[in-house]
This record gives sequence, structure tokens and C-alpha cells, in this order.
Amino acid sequence: MDFTEDTATAAVQESFQNTSDPRLREIVTTLTRHLHEFVREIRPTQREWGQAIEFLTAVGHTCDDTRQEFVLLSDVFGVSMLIETINGGDGDATDGTVLGPFHMTESPRRELGDTIDLIGTGQQCEVSGTVTAVDGTPLAGAVIDVWQATDHGFYDVQQPGIQPPGNGRGLFTADDQGRFHFRTVVPSHYPIPTDGPIGRLLGATGRHPYRPAHIHFIASAPGYETVTTHVFVADSPYLDSDAVFAVKRSLVVDFVPGDDGIRHAAFDIALEQAQ
Amino acid sequence: MDFTEDTATAAVQESFQNTSDPRLREIVTTLTRHLHEFVREIRPTQREWGQAIEFLTAVGHTCDDTRQEFVLLSDVFGVSMLIETINGGDGDATDGTVLGPFHMTESPRRELGDTIDLIGTGQQCEVSGTVTAVDGTPLAGAVIDVWQATDHGFYDVQQPGIQPPGNGRGLFTADDQGRFHFRTVVPSHYPIPTDGPIGRLLGATGRHPYRPAHIHFIASAPGYETVTTHVFVADSPYLDSDAVFAVKRSLVVDFVPGDDGIRHAAFDIALEQAQ
Repeated sequence: MDFTEDTATAAVQESFQNTSDPRLREIVTTLTRHLHEFVREIRPTQREWGQAIEFLTAVGHTCDDTRQEFVLLSDVFGVSMLIETINGGDGDATDGTVLGPFHMTESPRRELGDTIDLIGTGQQCEVSGTVTAVDGTPLAGAVIDVWQATDHGFYDVQQPGIQPPGNGRGLFTADDQGRFHFRTVVPSHYPIPTDGPIGRLLGATGRHPYRPAHIHFIASAPGYETVTTHVFVADSPYLDSDAVFAVKRSLVVDFVPGDDGIRHAAFDIALEQAQ
Repeated sequence: MDFTEDTATAAVQESFQNTSDPRLREIVTTLTRHLHEFVREIRPTQREWGQAIEFLTAVGHTCDDTRQEFVLLSDVFGVSMLIETINGGDGDATDGTVLGPFHMTESPRRELGDTIDLIGTGQQCEVSGTVTAVDGTPLAGAVIDVWQATDHGFYDVQQPGIQPPGNGRGLFTADDQGRFHFRTVVPSHYPIPTDGPIGRLLGATGRHPYRPAHIHFIASAPGYETVTTHVFVADSPYLDSDAVFAVKRSLVVDFVPGDDGIRHAAFDIALEQAQ
């Protein structure tokens, strides 16, 4: 029987029926249905199909060891944040948010109190907090992986030769009471990379590319669910229109000027027990 | 307001409201809805999301000047054929089918009667026909672009150094009565490329990678809709399970043994008037 608009979806789903992994079978047959529904609704011309192929190819060719344009694509369509939300813990754990495309290198191990700012210009600050279980029990030895853009809005991997590798990154181990603290520069808001296909997409759709100022965190402890999140700087622009939809109110933190001439941000992290 | 599972789709669609091109706005807002529906139904884990990002990146990195893995991805999910079907002409024009990923180089101009088989082994054949309007009016000077795999099942671009460039390809101009004829080798069925991510996908989903034997055609004439199609060899295996869903019964042609020791295939092409 010929492949027609009416028989197409069943024919493709049928072809996947010998998939041995039931989860993979569910994913590919469900993806087939949604892809075909999208195509039947939009009714792309052959020229539009060709433009879509070119766009995806350009996204792929923009990915390298230090750049992940497909993560950006997922981010700007809210897919990353939707998946983060679906997988989020209960209300007592710290809210998660997107991983983003810049967690591509291993953060250097640093001692509590060290700075992750290897340049030293800009407004300095100290970030401190405690990692606990949701019932408040301190998690001694919890690991906190942090990474951020500079006060000019760039990650180290975006400026090789300008920033030293590992600038703005640190892997810290909490003390025996779950406490951590480190020094850094107050990060700037910044545009996601606009020189590739995602930047062109944002331009064509009248969207700005900016993210509010933030520091990325991944906090983990044995026996607990790892949380991937950000601390957002409370006086940053774009908190209401993050290009990747990642802001949660619970993650917006005041960076308070102190008598010591630097700013201070407090961010406690609560982890759910692993299931 | 925080981004939640319930508010996600509206928030992303709202971000696209300043898109100046109304068709692009329709595409991105509709794509957002279908992407989010897929995600809400499948509820991917973060690990599965990471695997999807890796898969798409590998597809992009497999694309180069002579290979188009995103076209293959579109093909094996039946998306290419669905779009071809949606854009197909009325019942009187020759049925279209997928372009496929191998129309990547310009076909060399050849004279009517020339062979496109620059190797000369295998079962030889002659393909002939007439290009007309749907009312039967011959289309003098119609252009027929043909390309095919060898009797071993490979396109020239897949075997640089083994096949001469342009082997299996030809650009012909019909005579003043719309007639064309050329010589070639009877093509073989073949697997779509299995050494990349799409091959791994087919393997993981228990699908074979084979396409029935065929010759690609693009026929065009001024004032008429161009048709992209295939001639399928009637005694080929896999006519019932083409990996890219491209077989239409109207395109299956007998390659009839002749007294002259070669096989003969007749394929007339009818084009719709351009709108």
C-alpha cells in the first residue's frame, strides 16, 4: 500500500515494533506521532524542509569541544527548562534550573575560601551557604561545582588566550558542617552566543539573547539527588525575560554590599534523599 | 512568574510574538507546542535529554559536502516522504518521492543515448520515456536529472577513488517531442549508510537499512511543476519495506530483457502546470 498522509504515521510506527528496549520503542513511536502531527499542521513546502535541514546542519557544525549549539537550541525553545521542571524534586529541595551549554570542562578543585576569579577586576563578592538534607541535617563533605561568566559576561571557554583556563570555575568540598564559601567577581548579565544559527533564530524572531547575571551550581552528596541550579543576582537586568526561561524566584539572591568593600551572597542548598 | 509545566508553552510562544515574518512565527510557535507536548508525554530524564543532545550533535558532525545525515534522519522517520506527499500534485501528474541524501553534486550534462555508467560492469539497460503535460502534450526540451547507485549499491560520492566523479549521474534534455533515453547499469538495492548515528538508530530499533533498487529523477520544464521521483526496479527486494518509505506502486517499472542482451525500462513523466 502506498504511503499516504493518512497511513504515514502508522507505517513508520510499525517499522519500530521490533525495538527491543521498551523505553526506546516508546520514545521513537511517540516522536514519530508528534513529528508527523507537526508536519501535517504546518504543511512545510519542500523549500522550507530544505531550510530546516540546513538549519539543523549548521547547528551541528557549530558544536565543538567548547560549544554546544544543540543545548542552546533546546534552551531557547524552553525544552531544557521544561525537562528540568519535570525532573525537579519536591518543594522542600532547592529548585533546579538549566545546565546550560558552558559546563564543558572539569572545574578545578579549590579550597574553601579560595577565589574562582583569576583576573581580579570588577566588583568582588563572597558566596557562602550550607548544604543540607531537606530536614536541615548538614551534609558534611557535599561537593559544590560552580561556574560563571566574568563581569564582562564571558565564560573562560569563550575567550581562550584572554581568560586563563578554569577562570570562573571551582570544585569545592563542604566542611564537616556542610558549609561552603568562596570568593569571586559579581558576574554580568550576558548574551548567549549570537554568532551561530541560534543567534540568527533569535534575530529572525525578534527575541533578545540576554540572560540575567547568575552563578551556576551543581551540588551533590552521596545518597542524595544532585541538584543543578543557578544563583541569580537580584539587581540584574533580564530577570523577567531570560532568553532560556531559567529564572525561578527562589533562586534570586541579594548580593549585599559589606563593610569590607565586597558584596556578600548567602545561598543554602537543600537536597532530597535519593530514591 | 516561575516557568512551570503548565505555563511553559505559553511563555515560550509569547517570546516569539515579535517575529516579523508571519509564516516563521506560525512555524516556531507551532513547533514549540509540539515539542512541549512530546516532552510532557515522554517525560525524559536528564540522562535521556543528554543522549538526545549527543545524538543530534553526532548527526550534525556526520554531515559534510558529500553526506547529509539530517536528510537520512528525516527519511527514516517518514518525515521526508510525508512532506513529499503533502506537496504532491494531483492524480494525473507523475507521483513524487523523496529526494534522498545523495543529490549533492551537479549531474554532468550528457547527450540523449549516452550512458551514465562509467564503469561498464553489471547488467546494462536502457531507460526511455516522454515528458508531457498531464493532458499528454509533449514538453520539448524538458530537463531530466538522473542519479543512481551502481550494481554494487553505492553512489559515486560514497566511493571517491573507486568510482569516477559523476558516475551514475546525468543531466539530459528531452528532444522536440519530449522524449529522452539513456543507458546505464541496472542499479542494486542497497543499505542507507549504517556507519553513522542513523545506522546506529536503525540497529537499536531492529530495522533493516535497505532500499529497493531505484533510479532517481528530477524532471522539469518551464511553466510546469518540477517532480522529484524514482523509478523502482520491479524485481528488487525490499519494495515492501523501503527503509525510507518512498515506494509508490505507480513508480515500480519492469526492466524487461530485450533481444539485444540488455534490459529496457519505459518511464513516462507527466508534469502539472505551475500555479
